[in-house]
Amino acid sequence: MAQRINHKTLKRFLHYRLCLTKFQGLGFRKVFSYNLGEEAGVSAEQVRKDFSLFAIKGSKRGGYDIEYLLNAINDVFKQNGDRMIIIIGMGNIGNALVKYQGFKENKIRIVAGFDLDPSKYSKKFAIPIYPPDMIPEIVVKYGIKTAVIAVPAIAGQEICDRLVTAGIKGILNFSPVLLRVPGDVMVNYVNLRNELETLFFYI
Amino acid sequence: MAQRINHKTLKRFLHYRLCLTKFQGLGFRKVFSYNLGEEAGVSAEQVRKDFSLFAIKGSKRGGYDIEYLLNAINDVFKQNGDRMIIIIGMGNIGNALVKYQGFKENKIRIVAGFDLDPSKYSKKFAIPIYPPDMIPEIVVKYGIKTAVIAVPAIAGQEICDRLVTAGIKGILNFSPVLLRVPGDVMVNYVNLRNELETLFFYI
Repeated sequence: MAQRINHKTLKRFLHYRLCLTKFQGLGFRKVFSYNLGEEAGVSAEQVRKDFSLFAIKGSKRGGYDIEYLLNAINDVFKQNGDRMIIIIGMGNIGNALVKYQGFKENKIRIVAGFDLDPSKYSKKFAIPIYPPDMIPEIVVKYGIKTAVIAVPAIAGQEICDRLVTAGIKGILNFSPVLLRVPGDVMVNYVNLRNELETLFFYI
Repeated sequence: MAQRINHKTLKRFLHYRLCLTKFQGLGFRKVFSYNLGEEAGVSAEQVRKDFSLFAIKGSKRGGYDIEYLLNAINDVFKQNGDRMIIIIGMGNIGNALVKYQGFKENKIRIVAGFDLDPSKYSKKFAIPIYPPDMIPEIVVKYGIKTAVIAVPAIAGQEICDRLVTAGIKGILNFSPVLLRVPGDVMVNYVNLRNELETLFFYI
């Protein structure tokens, strides 16, 4: 099914999930496509079309059950591969990610961290920390497909190359640098400076 | 000028900056619109059109000077208001942001942090930490317009309301919750779980 779903549709699904969680928090149990569309900033038709892609059904009179929708959306994201990741770079961002509660709650498991600094191979993290040379070994051992890059910009591409060689197919990149990857590797960027700069611009 | 520039154009500019920094790192000093377009994934025409919006000029034969382009792009983002921010929530993410070198390098100054936990009002952070009740005072004192929300989901909307009341116009939100804001307030979202889930989906 994955090949039929493009990135924009997927982003809308994740956005629906946030909207639905909000409705649920407000005490609602049912939602109509136009409620969800209004909250998500898309048309009711779009909502129905998106859900029908995954055979998610509502009734015209009763609407969709919110709990059912949330489970269905979570199923969409659960059925594809495992949810184990590794983190390269155990600086401030890597460290924050290890402690980030949102991952634990959603069964995203950080298997290991990697850092050049030997003083980090001690027990002070909740996960084992290894030197970058061990990336291939750990990736193969656990069948890891997804990695987070949180190293300084200057090391970003080199780490990326190592990850790709080791078999990584999905990268979440915090390093403020554009990565060169083969066509079968997907990179999502989190660029904190850029996010702030667009705010500064408009204000 | 800001009103003529839409969000997508602005995002392209930030993307150009990353591409140009990469070219510079590779030792290039000049770039043609088709080089930049190819790297950025847009047409050469788009590149020229975007630059002409800000009266940024190149020559047909010599191309653009990379250093000049980088300065020009930085000017675009510097000329609008100040670059002081506050952070609400001094947990792992807030803490990582305070230490984040990328902000210091780009003259983004974190003026203060806010947290409910009194044990955080001590000296262990590089910035002063206050209780959330002091948000209005600090915002007015420094003329702050931009804030980062890094509190748990359950507190996200309440903190957002307080910020808006205090006069904040731009919010970078790490809290995994959709925020309700007036039309003149802009919110950028960083949702780490969502970024990872799209990777899991495709792999």
